[in-house]
Amino acid sequence: MSHPAAATAPRRLHLNVNILHSGFVPSAWRLDHADPRAFVDVGHYVRVAQLAERGKLDAVFLADNAAIIDQIDFRPITALEPTVLLASIAAATTHIGVIGTASTSYNEPYNIARRFATLDHVSHGRAGWNVVTTADLPSARNFGRDAVPDHAERYARAAEFTEVVKALWNSWDDDAFIGDKASGRFIDVNKVRPLAHRGRFFQVQGPLNLPRTPQGHPVLVQAGGSADGRDLAARHAEAVFSASQSFEESAAYRRELNARAAAYGRPAGVKVLAGLTTIIGATEAEARRRRDDLIDQIPWRYSLTRIAGILGVSPDVLDLDRRLPDDLALPNGGNGNHTFFHATLAEARRGGHTVRELIRALGGGGGHRVIVGTPEQIADDIERWFKGEAADGFNLMPDALPDGLEAFVEGVVPILQQRGLFRTEYEGRTLREHFGLARPDHTHAQRHEAAEPA
Amino acid sequence: MSHPAAATAPRRLHLNVNILHSGFVPSAWRLDHADPRAFVDVGHYVRVAQLAERGKLDAVFLADNAAIIDQIDFRPITALEPTVLLASIAAATTHIGVIGTASTSYNEPYNIARRFATLDHVSHGRAGWNVVTTADLPSARNFGRDAVPDHAERYARAAEFTEVVKALWNSWDDDAFIGDKASGRFIDVNKVRPLAHRGRFFQVQGPLNLPRTPQGHPVLVQAGGSADGRDLAARHAEAVFSASQSFEESAAYRRELNARAAAYGRPAGVKVLAGLTTIIGATEAEARRRRDDLIDQIPWRYSLTRIAGILGVSPDVLDLDRRLPDDLALPNGGNGNHTFFHATLAEARRGGHTVRELIRALGGGGGHRVIVGTPEQIADDIERWFKGEAADGFNLMPDALPDGLEAFVEGVVPILQQRGLFRTEYEGRTLREHFGLARPDHTHAQRHEAAEPA
Repeated sequence: MSHPAAATAPRRLHLNVNILHSGFVPSAWRLDHADPRAFVDVGHYVRVAQLAERGKLDAVFLADNAAIIDQIDFRPITALEPTVLLASIAAATTHIGVIGTASTSYNEPYNIARRFATLDHVSHGRAGWNVVTTADLPSARNFGRDAVPDHAERYARAAEFTEVVKALWNSWDDDAFIGDKASGRFIDVNKVRPLAHRGRFFQVQGPLNLPRTPQGHPVLVQAGGSADGRDLAARHAEAVFSASQSFEESAAYRRELNARAAAYGRPAGVKVLAGLTTIIGATEAEARRRRDDLIDQIPWRYSLTRIAGILGVSPDVLDLDRRLPDDLALPNGGNGNHTFFHATLAEARRGGHTVRELIRALGGGGGHRVIVGTPEQIADDIERWFKGEAADGFNLMPDALPDGLEAFVEGVVPILQQRGLFRTEYEGRTLREHFGLARPDHTHAQRHEAAEPA
Repeated sequence: MSHPAAATAPRRLHLNVNILHSGFVPSAWRLDHADPRAFVDVGHYVRVAQLAERGKLDAVFLADNAAIIDQIDFRPITALEPTVLLASIAAATTHIGVIGTASTSYNEPYNIARRFATLDHVSHGRAGWNVVTTADLPSARNFGRDAVPDHAERYARAAEFTEVVKALWNSWDDDAFIGDKASGRFIDVNKVRPLAHRGRFFQVQGPLNLPRTPQGHPVLVQAGGSADGRDLAARHAEAVFSASQSFEESAAYRRELNARAAAYGRPAGVKVLAGLTTIIGATEAEARRRRDDLIDQIPWRYSLTRIAGILGVSPDVLDLDRRLPDDLALPNGGNGNHTFFHATLAEARRGGHTVRELIRALGGGGGHRVIVGTPEQIADDIERWFKGEAADGFNLMPDALPDGLEAFVEGVVPILQQRGLFRTEYEGRTLREHFGLARPDHTHAQRHEAAEPA
């Protein structure tokens, strides 16, 4: 069964914004107009989401960790739990999608199925779940483990977890609800079916205790760059967040992922939303000054420690004025965050950077691509990637929030609209409609869960 | 260390409302003005909460199960996940508390600590957690178990779970946040401490990845009627939801619970909020007609099956026109819901009811006390229980929502206010302030976790 609408519709640009507390650059909270307490202020998140909705963006996105994994002496943390915070955001907005992260390693599928289904109900069809396996040790230690579970093990659990969640979402037929006052019939129980799932990791009887949601089920998002991560995305994800540093790398990733998805009988493919940090100025010089001001307010020992953590070395090994050592291997016995490790190395080699230059190029030390420039320059870059099929859209990580997003919404969005690349009004009310995704046919979905690659 | 403010302040009446989908009586969804889809409509829950806030009630409450445990062919279910739904409610209200249920048997403490702490942040200090152990088999089967864990095991896990959650909530000092732009110091990491908890059920390193919440920590609520349940409440609960059918029983329960709490070094005691279903009419005859109309719309086989489930027998054993059998024992090998089993038996014996009369007296078959009458009669009953110290307040379960609550807010609340029993305006903004609870001193709380009864 194919998705003719999705397959033949013209490609559309998609834009999310990652509401990473005060912004992507670690010193964002130190800007003049920033409120340092924004990271725990629901009003901050709501204002950013309303601004994104004003810009007609597809969705807001919240990352998550189940531990303190950053250096909180210098920087806010990803702290408020995404599903609860996204419900607050949904209550204060009408159209924009709400995508939240939750870990398959430290949750139970029944609970995750319910929470995201609830979010889809309360947002009237705007929910998405970003499936992560959580690679950090502090999170493992908050859930009874002394070590991070093995990479293959985490992804095997994630695959079964995702299948169970989808099966729970599909355990009610669309027309199971009757609600006929005259006869007293409330639900047609023949249209609500148990799963009786007994797998390697989970035994889940089902059905879900919640009717099918406005979107059929929430949109499935994924972000893994490893082979296992790509396989999970190809089987289940409707959109992925990627971290490619170059056009060629992103285009190759997108082609490969869509070929894998097609092999799993999913010809509509997967939307690739490339991570993009924007540092915007009225002139290029002004943008660079903003970048330099922000970078200069990050303590070097913060950045060194952070990049050393991504690379799996001691900060003492890194010299700010030299290039990275040659003998770097994925940290944690190959069990670390593949995406950020490889993206950081790729940028270091592409630019021939010293560590200091690399930190500057990465906007303070993360693994995502950074553009510093005018609205026109940023729009040009977005157009090139989109038209060249290196990406279907972008997961924006503005340098600082809300002002970095405001500069994007007021400066870049109108240019994209004038060029006919981006919507001027929402055409639908659900995240699926914004992303151009078909409403899942659950009979179809159930058949696919058992499918092997062709 | 004592709580002098809480111990010496005049007693105040507290009123919650349990937003049990369309209402407590199973046929509530069939009333003329009822929307059968209300159980999954966020707008319904928000309107009920706003109505409760208009009545100056302390809090709204959401029960929860992690499975379908009722007969959905005839009746809505408790379906939307409480913390997500309460965030939606909090966004649409300003004062009323938001209390949600979550199970200690089928969650991890780190996740629960975060979700309720997040709810406390986004509601600006209005969150409460109702701690339950979940006694039903369908829930167990959604979490990898073929049987309900043993009662003692569930409560041992619940006790350790609750201690870990409190310790996580207390892992940040109130003044750990600095946020000084000039120096770049964000958090004083010396004021954020790991737990390094290694217990029988859990290993949790901590700290929580979230600053201390507006209320210090969310209000802890509990509802267990068994000996283990009372012990858990005496150690940790700040309020309990009880299910006593008679004044004497409730007064004895309250005395015993407060004596236990005092033995644990908690002289401020525990607020006892008695479950109360109200069926209100302008005259007593009108109220009785409403009750009879509602009961007549419940299929008898629904009510028989439900009451048989609570009593742990086959519906075939029950005869509508005879009294209950004498040889009833707590279902599920003593592992069932103690509270509803005992409350149902108590009402049957008190009233000398046939099964049909019992179902009518219980408003369709649950275990909570039902009053059918005028606003004046209901206010009299509330006053008698409150002044006689049988309860500190009530967990209201209106027959139907929103109209049963509307009758209460417009009819009963003004009488209680005229008699000086109930607030005419909110005096605070947090749930703790509404309940007259001290803000927890976390050093104090940490010491108490290790305490044994005196």
